[in-house]
Amino acid sequence: MDATLQKYIDKLNALNFKEMYEGDFFLTWDKSDDELEAVFTVADALRYMRENNISTKIFESGLGISLFRDNSTRTRFSFASACNLLGLEVQDLDEGKSQIAHGETVRETANMISFMADVIGIRDDMYIGKGHTYQKEVAEAVTQGHKDGVLEQKPTLINLQCDIDHPTQCMADMLHIIHHFGGVENLKGKKIAMTWAYSPSYGKPLSVPQGVIGLMSRFGMDVVLAHPEGYEVMPEVEEVAKANAAKTGGSFTKTNSMAEAFKDADIVYPKSWAPFAAMEKRTNLYAEGDADGIKALEKELLAQNADHKDWCCTEELMKTTKDGKALYLHCLPADINDVSCKDGEVEASVFDRYRTPLYKEASYKPYIIAAMIFLAKVKDPQTTLKALEERGIARWFQK
Amino acid sequence: MDATLQKYIDKLNALNFKEMYEGDFFLTWDKSDDELEAVFTVADALRYMRENNISTKIFESGLGISLFRDNSTRTRFSFASACNLLGLEVQDLDEGKSQIAHGETVRETANMISFMADVIGIRDDMYIGKGHTYQKEVAEAVTQGHKDGVLEQKPTLINLQCDIDHPTQCMADMLHIIHHFGGVENLKGKKIAMTWAYSPSYGKPLSVPQGVIGLMSRFGMDVVLAHPEGYEVMPEVEEVAKANAAKTGGSFTKTNSMAEAFKDADIVYPKSWAPFAAMEKRTNLYAEGDADGIKALEKELLAQNADHKDWCCTEELMKTTKDGKALYLHCLPADINDVSCKDGEVEASVFDRYRTPLYKEASYKPYIIAAMIFLAKVKDPQTTLKALEERGIARWFQK
Amino acid sequence: MDATLQKYIDKLNALNFKEMYEGDFFLTWDKSDDELEAVFTVADALRYMRENNISTKIFESGLGISLFRDNSTRTRFSFASACNLLGLEVQDLDEGKSQIAHGETVRETANMISFMADVIGIRDDMYIGKGHTYQKEVAEAVTQGHKDGVLEQKPTLINLQCDIDHPTQCMADMLHIIHHFGGVENLKGKKIAMTWAYSPSYGKPLSVPQGVIGLMSRFGMDVVLAHPEGYEVMPEVEEVAKANAAKTGGSFTKTNSMAEAFKDADIVYPKSWAPFAAMEKRTNLYAEGDADGIKALEKELLAQNADHKDWCCTEELMKTTKDGKALYLHCLPADINDVSCKDGEVEASVFDRYRTPLYKEASYKPYIIAAMIFLAKVKDPQTTLKALEERGIARWFQK
Repeated sequence: MDATLQKYIDKLNALNFKEMYEGDFFLTWDKSDDELEAVFTVADALRYMRENNISTKIFESGLGISLFRDNSTRTRFSFASACNLLGLEVQDLDEGKSQIAHGETVRETANMISFMADVIGIRDDMYIGKGHTYQKEVAEAVTQGHKDGVLEQKPTLINLQCDIDHPTQCMADMLHIIHHFGGVENLKGKKIAMTWAYSPSYGKPLSVPQGVIGLMSRFGMDVVLAHPEGYEVMPEVEEVAKANAAKTGGSFTKTNSMAEAFKDADIVYPKSWAPFAAMEKRTNLYAEGDADGIKALEKELLAQNADHKDWCCTEELMKTTKDGKALYLHCLPADINDVSCKDGEVEASVFDRYRTPLYKEASYKPYIIAAMIFLAKVKDPQTTLKALEERGIARWFQK
Repeated sequence: MDATLQKYIDKLNALNFKEMYEGDFFLTWDKSDDELEAVFTVADALRYMRENNISTKIFESGLGISLFRDNSTRTRFSFASACNLLGLEVQDLDEGKSQIAHGETVRETANMISFMADVIGIRDDMYIGKGHTYQKEVAEAVTQGHKDGVLEQKPTLINLQCDIDHPTQCMADMLHIIHHFGGVENLKGKKIAMTWAYSPSYGKPLSVPQGVIGLMSRFGMDVVLAHPEGYEVMPEVEEVAKANAAKTGGSFTKTNSMAEAFKDADIVYPKSWAPFAAMEKRTNLYAEGDADGIKALEKELLAQNADHKDWCCTEELMKTTKDGKALYLHCLPADINDVSCKDGEVEASVFDRYRTPLYKEASYKPYIIAAMIFLAKVKDPQTTLKALEERGIARWFQK
Repeated sequence: MDATLQKYIDKLNALNFKEMYEGDFFLTWDKSDDELEAVFTVADALRYMRENNISTKIFESGLGISLFRDNSTRTRFSFASACNLLGLEVQDLDEGKSQIAHGETVRETANMISFMADVIGIRDDMYIGKGHTYQKEVAEAVTQGHKDGVLEQKPTLINLQCDIDHPTQCMADMLHIIHHFGGVENLKGKKIAMTWAYSPSYGKPLSVPQGVIGLMSRFGMDVVLAHPEGYEVMPEVEEVAKANAAKTGGSFTKTNSMAEAFKDADIVYPKSWAPFAAMEKRTNLYAEGDADGIKALEKELLAQNADHKDWCCTEELMKTTKDGKALYLHCLPADINDVSCKDGEVEASVFDRYRTPLYKEASYKPYIIAAMIFLAKVKDPQTTLKALEERGIARWFQK
């Protein structure tokens, strides 16, 4: 047995993640520390095997259904890559091309697309109070369909971003942090600043900052959430972060000063988002079909944003971080000053310096998704990883 | 050899379906009883093997081309599932994205997309006199292309719904009936009511009622076609149904009373469709580009529909069926009263009671399609099924 | 070892194409004669193996990314077929569905889609000076991403048509010519006429005529480029053609007479294109967002085209070719008189007579693309082809 792979298996042997089998992945705070650790470990193992030309296809056939209710490049390709790595063919449910009847229940659509679906990945992040609920409904529908004998297998639901959390993004961010600092054990006491930043666009989802404070607060770090007044995130998620911090000996604090957040930070994550209250209002306006109200709100929000153009990740601010070289994170694409817009989230020179680490950060996402699927689909991951190595099918055949 | 699989093989051994090899599937009445029986048997065998984690991939590579000239969820995913089950990758011919020149012949397009196509699935149900003709043209084009040495293989054409028949739907409906009643042998003398029902939408295809009377009349059942005056289906298909009934000792009758059709029925299939004559008229108006005529026709048809809101599958009507519990069928999505619309095809409580059976009905479609492909692609299905079992590749690999 | 396959391997053994490994394919004139010969030979070998039911899947998993900035049927399906033949799943980067930020760098997008991409195929032929440059940028970005450890593999870039060349089309045309005349060795002294032809549409890319003169001039043939005054192609490519002809003992000449070009020609390729200078002007107008200028230019170009309706491949002209039966080529779809338009590139009777050869011409494209990928991905193609034969996995499994 390959020594590195054995190391991953040993790591898994020490963890309890039995409940993940046949499960779904909605929010990181639904999962135990062991379960998250299992995801990181399987992600590393799958990447290691691919790098060493060992096929990890566990499906000879089967579909991975994707449903994107918002545009996507990174997550779309990450999901497609993860499915492909495990042997599933992606079939996109394009609601435009579909004959989904007015009033057709979620339960019906979910079953109709799932006869041979092993996985369903959904991005639905636009409206507060909707995305997560919809994902839950789909998961319940197919669980019921499986029980009723309609579906031969229960498809696993993977949250590819909802109104509350963006677990595949934040877990990828976290795996990047872990590798950057040489292991989870080195994170205790590190300071991470999740801060708002100015963007000329409006209505960016809250799932990234919420996902970050909900996840990063579990590793004994000092998590600071910074934003101008009025850019609050969902209070429930702040409660999650507080509770996490209390349990792990870290801290969760809030500030309205970007400078304070950056001061001595080991990690900074400056990123724009819309105020939670405004997003709630927008959701209601859409529900009421109030086009004038939506336009007025948009104008108001853009004006509000413009009051905070000084919330930018500048070279000057970066100098105030730990040794002047905090790890800069972003989920991409970033609004870069004088590149994508006049004033944005980050100065071009800062972004450029971190380009390679940022791309590496993104490169973990396909493996995080694949690991989530693997753990939901394989009853005994350790034995199966070993069996895949023994099977010895090359991913890339050449002599 | 697994006993259940052996049973399916024994069944196939007693049937003559040699002509299906290298064939296409346009209309159920093109096929002999043995051939239809072979489709049902292979569908059951493939499902059994998938349930028992035996891969039925007969293609290592190859494409399944889909062309949907109408929106679709169920059939789209069923076709994708069937192709995937057999090892073919679906490639959608999106005519919008394509560079199909004005005046380009069907023959040319058909060949250009088929260099590595093993299957072509087409839905083209919008215009009377067009869909079936188009499918025939495509099949002839690729048959010729294969003969001429342009194509290394002759792609199999599968009718995913045309203006005349919807064989993958009706065969799935029928397989559901067969399993519900415990075998074809139990269908003799059963009464099935294919009846029109009110829907607030307009222009629904006739292929389902036509497909149903053309197929269900072959099993010794009493088939009743019910609709308001003016909602006639294609006379040629009625002739098919009459001839079928005569041959099998069943009957085919028509009525303008929904109540009469439901009375003592074992199976009911209440579903909206547009009048054949109106659809013919619409096809001509489209050909002439007469937008005003189309609008006027639409208005007229909606008004005509509205005269028949009483054609609804109510609890009251259901009570009049055999023991008050006829098997309720629908191709989905249904227009459900107070769910998808105010007045529709069926009362919500009736629909809800039959939800699980309806989903099961739909679940046969991927297997019906896969069986049609399998029988067109495999010269000796019995030996190949056996060989697939012996090959013993798991669909879902885990240790 | 199969004798025919051995013949292909012997042929490869005599060629030097080492540099193709881990390379890209932009322009045919970037490649040596040996390298082009290797592409033709591997294309033939892959086709031979597929015809003999030997799977040539060299990838168990992996993605082939396609990016079409122009509509496409033939090339889209050819690319999908090639990827599928080698085991890659096609994932289309639909820029409409993507969240590509304003100002997002090519470098970033290229990396974000490539985490598991083995191949990227791009069609970008609309604007002079843009398509090729864009493809180069993408290739450099992923090469850098691979060096930086972001990407585990360097995706191969395949030019599926740019503003300069259309190598997959012209190589397929050429392989058709080679087979038609019984081998490269028989081409010396043959006359090929690449001529402009009238089309009622406007702005057709120049990449086909440019690709043809840049490639066909390498085989000792007499290449004649014919067009009305004002329909010049890129001068740089004419220089390439001249230099090629000088090296191989053929010739490259120009004329403004279609009749002169057809006279005694062995091969004719009559096809419409837009004048290079006009395309350059259009590119600038688009860059300036000058809608009125674009409209005016379009009108001007259509009027200019209409002056040359006599540039049509007629029966009369065909009679003047060698023995009255030159091989007629077209990349399809053609503008056919009285079929796709009143006046077009070719008379219907000419086109009809060459229909089967034209379809065969097109049928080489998937194999040309597959061969380009194979040679970029496999270090030792000869040994790998042999190993694929020995592996003996059937493409189409049946007993």
